[in-house]
Amino acid sequence: MKEFFRPKSIAVIGVSREENKIGHVIFKNLLEAKFKVYPITPNAQEILGVRCYSSVAEVKDNIELAIICVHQSLVMSILEDCNYMKIKNVLIISSGFSEVGNVKAEEELKEYTTKNNIRVIGPNCLGLYDAYSNLDCIFIPKEKLRRPNKGGVSFVCQSGALGGAVLDLLASKHVGFSKFISYGNAVDINESDLLQYLNKDKHTKVICLYVEGIKNPEKFFNICKKIKKPIIVLKGGLTEKGSKAAMSHTGSMAGEKEVFYGIFDQLNLVRVDSLEQMFDVAMLFDKEIKLKGNKILVLTNGGGFGIISADGIELSKNLKMTELSLNVKRRLWKELPPTVNIGNPLDIVGDANDERYKFALENVMNDKNVDCVLVIVLYQTPTLDEKVLEVIAKFNKKPMILVATGSNPEYLKNLNLVSFDFPEKAISALDKLVGYYNKR
Amino acid sequence: MKEFFRPKSIAVIGVSREENKIGHVIFKNLLEAKFKVYPITPNAQEILGVRCYSSVAEVKDNIELAIICVHQSLVMSILEDCNYMKIKNVLIISSGFSEVGNVKAEEELKEYTTKNNIRVIGPNCLGLYDAYSNLDCIFIPKEKLRRPNKGGVSFVCQSGALGGAVLDLLASKHVGFSKFISYGNAVDINESDLLQYLNKDKHTKVICLYVEGIKNPEKFFNICKKIKKPIIVLKGGLTEKGSKAAMSHTGSMAGEKEVFYGIFDQLNLVRVDSLEQMFDVAMLFDKEIKLKGNKILVLTNGGGFGIISADGIELSKNLKMTELSLNVKRRLWKELPPTVNIGNPLDIVGDANDERYKFALENVMNDKNVDCVLVIVLYQTPTLDEKVLEVIAKFNKKPMILVATGSNPEYLKNLNLVSFDFPEKAISALDKLVGYYNKR
Repeated sequence: MKEFFRPKSIAVIGVSREENKIGHVIFKNLLEAKFKVYPITPNAQEILGVRCYSSVAEVKDNIELAIICVHQSLVMSILEDCNYMKIKNVLIISSGFSEVGNVKAEEELKEYTTKNNIRVIGPNCLGLYDAYSNLDCIFIPKEKLRRPNKGGVSFVCQSGALGGAVLDLLASKHVGFSKFISYGNAVDINESDLLQYLNKDKHTKVICLYVEGIKNPEKFFNICKKIKKPIIVLKGGLTEKGSKAAMSHTGSMAGEKEVFYGIFDQLNLVRVDSLEQMFDVAMLFDKEIKLKGNKILVLTNGGGFGIISADGIELSKNLKMTELSLNVKRRLWKELPPTVNIGNPLDIVGDANDERYKFALENVMNDKNVDCVLVIVLYQTPTLDEKVLEVIAKFNKKPMILVATGSNPEYLKNLNLVSFDFPEKAISALDKLVGYYNKR
Repeated sequence: MKEFFRPKSIAVIGVSREENKIGHVIFKNLLEAKFKVYPITPNAQEILGVRCYSSVAEVKDNIELAIICVHQSLVMSILEDCNYMKIKNVLIISSGFSEVGNVKAEEELKEYTTKNNIRVIGPNCLGLYDAYSNLDCIFIPKEKLRRPNKGGVSFVCQSGALGGAVLDLLASKHVGFSKFISYGNAVDINESDLLQYLNKDKHTKVICLYVEGIKNPEKFFNICKKIKKPIIVLKGGLTEKGSKAAMSHTGSMAGEKEVFYGIFDQLNLVRVDSLEQMFDVAMLFDKEIKLKGNKILVLTNGGGFGIISADGIELSKNLKMTELSLNVKRRLWKELPPTVNIGNPLDIVGDANDERYKFALENVMNDKNVDCVLVIVLYQTPTLDEKVLEVIAKFNKKPMILVATGSNPEYLKNLNLVSFDFPEKAISALDKLVGYYNKR
């Protein structure tokens, strides 16, 4: 399946001269990423300085991947051309199949590609994006849909628009990606195949999965059982109304919540309640935050945030507020001003500066009673500014999560820190992470 | 109590020449806001071009509000000067009282001000901010802590740093404010007094309250019963660990979750689970979104977001997915392309343009089966850009909430729309709002 992500040569079928048309955008993306790419169209001699071919049959090269962007009515004849040229990997962007009730066309497509051993992603999908190979088949221009940078998150998503919107948002939040795959109606390659592939992908550290239905539950179960990487899953169509909508969206049988949840829990998939939480948790896995226990220490320069965090941790499923060791407490008592509250939360109060954060972190990181530090930084106080994050970022002896309300994301992106705006979000993401490791 | 927010003349006591010192920042803020303000310090003749006085006793004017920024050890003698000059309203920023165990000093302060009928906000607080009168006693420069624009949200907050961090964040999200009050240790004026005052404040549409303890539960109960405006409350110190931390933060007895929740529910206060949710809900009240029922219609150009929203609504406490009337459905069937899914969610699919949004909204807004429309706009699709929001913003026949993932907040701020990044957040905020109106 690597030909879908690192093809040696590509044909884009249905490339228009018009800049905003699907085929044009994809062709341009691939050209800019320096792929060997052939534009196929009978309506132009040359597009963006590249010679056009009226059919793949004219191309004197081994095409590893064909990307089909033509009208639904033309897809079958294009597939015949592809088969004639022995093209074995096809991404079908074109829509107009089962999702609009055109079940017959989809069955025909499926039958033909199965018989001829053609592997298919799609139809009715947004395409693929690989931050490492620079393969970018997303048909929305970069000005409208920003692409995320390199990282360890891969996102498998049945829905195209949802995937695109999320990708755009995550790019602005500097969540690093490996691969994004919108697989649409899944006539051939489905979520199970993609999970299996991503399990072997060296850049993927965590897999995010938005599914409406599972095409082949037995296969899904058997593949997931073997996957060593964390899988975070959000299921669309949990309720009757949602499930009905899923039917007309990707033709998926969404089915009962309890059944899905039972399977997910058995497989130790990380179930999330929202898209936002999905990527909050993914960020933690991406930064390889791995807890050996559940004992959390809250370090803060604001009392209120400390209290809210203590409540959140105590009310969570898997986390516990720790008690600092007596020798660590003694050292803190000795060196810190009397206004500081030595305990958990460790409230180093409103006049804390970089030095005080450093001293506190040095000590709590060395405490055997601490598995993870939740560091709260409110740098609206007079004695701090964003530079304190550079001091904090140097500590790596134990896992650490940052809550820095009102941070500039541009400033944060170069520091290897996981940062949240609000403590509640940090805690619920951490809770999911610890739940995952507890069950392994 | 209006002298705290619209004083005719102010003395700032403890103004340093140093730009980042508390007194200096406050003095500068007030000067820039064109208040009649007297800097009090024995150490300078003139600061920012204004003549300094060594004591309030030297000022030949009626001072309506004194703001005390001196060291704790000097507070009592300053209060005596204030009393001598018949100053009746005092804001004490200075810390070093019960929150650090100095209970005696706090009792002395309380006794003296009670005896002499001096009203006090503080000590140990961040101060006040009024977006309408421009009174700004927050001692953090605007470059470090952005101030929100005018609006209908007032935020009463015992914790200073928490309040400041949230204010800064909300300013960047364009949540409009009336008043922000950080009231610290509350020796005199407490949450109950402030709620009573805000109930009469014409600019305040919704009150957000972060409390650790309630100073006088009976008074709180009786005042809240009379308040007509929605109060959204977040309680710090719900758990044992959180409660213990609250004790050393604002000296509050935080106490048992069930007791507080019982009282809050009886008073129809809107309980929220996180700071973020507090302001999500506040935004809805600020925009005067008021539902007469709970029947929600989801309009979307992305199937996945529609499905997630349908699930969220059906799983919520107070909301229901509605069924469009037959005559509205017929009209939509007749005019919209066959790819559109007429139902709820009403999925006008990936090639929806401004016109299609307009047509769909016109029709669903007129449907008696619809109480509120959740409008999802994924403008990463080829046929849309942010301008569609201008079309959407014109509809006001029924309440409407927007989910526009990846929006530019700068673009949104001039449109009178409530917008969320993710459907789950919009739905949980709306659920709280409907819960509030159901119980009235």
